[in-house]
Amino acid sequence: MKALVYDGELKLSGDYQKPVLRDDEVLIKTIMVGICNTDYEITKGYMGYKGVLGHEFIGVVAGAGKNVDRNIMGKRVVGEINCACEDCSWCHKNLQRHCPNRSTLGIYKKDGCFSEYFTLPYKNVFEISDKIDDITATFTEPLAAAYEILEQVHIKPDDKVAILGDGKLGLCISLVFKALNIDFVHIGKHENKLKISKDIGAKTMMLSELTEKDKKSFDVVIEATGSTGGFETSASLVKPRGVLVLKSTIVAQEGLNLASIVVDEITVVGSRCGQFAPILRLLEEGKINVKPLVEKIYDIDDFVEAFKKNSEKGTLKVLVRF
Amino acid sequence: MKALVYDGELKLSGDYQKPVLRDDEVLIKTIMVGICNTDYEITKGYMGYKGVLGHEFIGVVAGAGKNVDRNIMGKRVVGEINCACEDCSWCHKNLQRHCPNRSTLGIYKKDGCFSEYFTLPYKNVFEISDKIDDITATFTEPLAAAYEILEQVHIKPDDKVAILGDGKLGLCISLVFKALNIDFVHIGKHENKLKISKDIGAKTMMLSELTEKDKKSFDVVIEATGSTGGFETSASLVKPRGVLVLKSTIVAQEGLNLASIVVDEITVVGSRCGQFAPILRLLEEGKINVKPLVEKIYDIDDFVEAFKKNSEKGTLKVLVRF
Repeated sequence: MKALVYDGELKLSGDYQKPVLRDDEVLIKTIMVGICNTDYEITKGYMGYKGVLGHEFIGVVAGAGKNVDRNIMGKRVVGEINCACEDCSWCHKNLQRHCPNRSTLGIYKKDGCFSEYFTLPYKNVFEISDKIDDITATFTEPLAAAYEILEQVHIKPDDKVAILGDGKLGLCISLVFKALNIDFVHIGKHENKLKISKDIGAKTMMLSELTEKDKKSFDVVIEATGSTGGFETSASLVKPRGVLVLKSTIVAQEGLNLASIVVDEITVVGSRCGQFAPILRLLEEGKINVKPLVEKIYDIDDFVEAFKKNSEKGTLKVLVRF
Repeated sequence: MKALVYDGELKLSGDYQKPVLRDDEVLIKTIMVGICNTDYEITKGYMGYKGVLGHEFIGVVAGAGKNVDRNIMGKRVVGEINCACEDCSWCHKNLQRHCPNRSTLGIYKKDGCFSEYFTLPYKNVFEISDKIDDITATFTEPLAAAYEILEQVHIKPDDKVAILGDGKLGLCISLVFKALNIDFVHIGKHENKLKISKDIGAKTMMLSELTEKDKKSFDVVIEATGSTGGFETSASLVKPRGVLVLKSTIVAQEGLNLASIVVDEITVVGSRCGQFAPILRLLEEGKINVKPLVEKIYDIDDFVEAFKKNSEKGTLKVLVRF
């Protein structure tokens, strides 16, 4: 089968071996996938991962292991990407995405969804209602990662909130926060991208418009720039005793100066993957329109070109149709 | 008057000008002071501060401004070090130590206590009961900074807690936590220092005894090593979704790799100065014995030598008697 593989080099294989289905898994035939910056970072060495890339998808169930309810066959599904043991204290607390024995689709010890077929545990998949189209469904994973912030941090009705960064991540957070009618300002560097937030009624602000009076003025700042400079700006915007949510592993790896975190007693909350059920509810109710975030939809045979497009600065979501 | 001054060079001045007393201030005649690593860091450039050093003290009130209750005259006092405006939203929330208009004794815009006389706002000072001796009272400030952790973080009865670092800071935290009978393990590199924790009944562990099974096993880890390596060890000990308390500005300035903070969704809580009232209650009840933490008591005329002693690796609390 066709698969986008990274093994030190990135290439579109034409004869990658179809995955072997385990008893508790479903086989998924890919419909559409999204390229995430994490996929790009993996090709730069992140996680030391080698194999089929990809973790954002919608597909249709084309096979079911012997322990799986066969009613799932033929259904359109999305799926949570962390494959857990279900047998440790983390899994027992419904925190499978922190299971120490987990593999992660296309990121760690498990081939991803950038291929014609791939597998996931049955318990990871969610059937998708006809109300959710393919493009929208492909955004489930990044939107769930945005919604994760609200599982971790209590944003109060009168909190002053900022999202810093107007790339894909910042925009997904903006879409989710707006769907929940949280009061926030979306701060970025690109008028064309901030316009996506503005068009859904969010307050927006160019980074260059920030003044001294904005410093230490926000209760909660979401750092979504993916840059060290962005982290420092975020930290400068948080009130003493406020909360800074850190979404980007890449920035965090670079080594950050946390002196103001101690002096101002700021709480830094690391935030990663989210649960699918809450975001699917919002998508089913039509509360989120992801379409303005789509940069371009490529055909599978142009996958390498699509990947290259994603790596260009300023690119929004690149999708690939199978 | 005699004063230990830093103005690019550290020196004991014999004729430093006695401070001018403001209407809302008291004049304090110093009895005893403690040297903090922050004092040492200031002589390395921290905060860009120049002036009289020092913020840990006990003294006796020798003068009272015209707005001050004169009953305070002649009383033994300690004092909170942040001098706030009492007129901003932070002060109104009783968070004077985050007042943006604050000065800080011996650290920022206000001469410190390493002199025969100094001033503090009346509202900053606390009269000390006869039950608390001079040496113990001098530890009020660092012990309050340790107690601050519990104002910020909810440590639950069955939480697994570690304090990493057996220097002055780690030992002060150990003394406070033990006084509250929190269940914790104190991890360090020095058997002689850990013995101080052991002697009050705390569980202790040499850093070299840590094994793979200790990784990601603590709900709360207090980073009190003052080193970047210590931060990394602390982060490796925290469970996913756990809390890492960061007490050292100095380490935070060096630039820390936070990748595991994002992946494991750890909460990093910056923590600085604490309130005096809660710790004075514990001291008055005799719940904390600071004496094993005293390295040596110097005379004021040997202040430079005392300061040098404090800067030597492994030194516990150096006190100076006036």
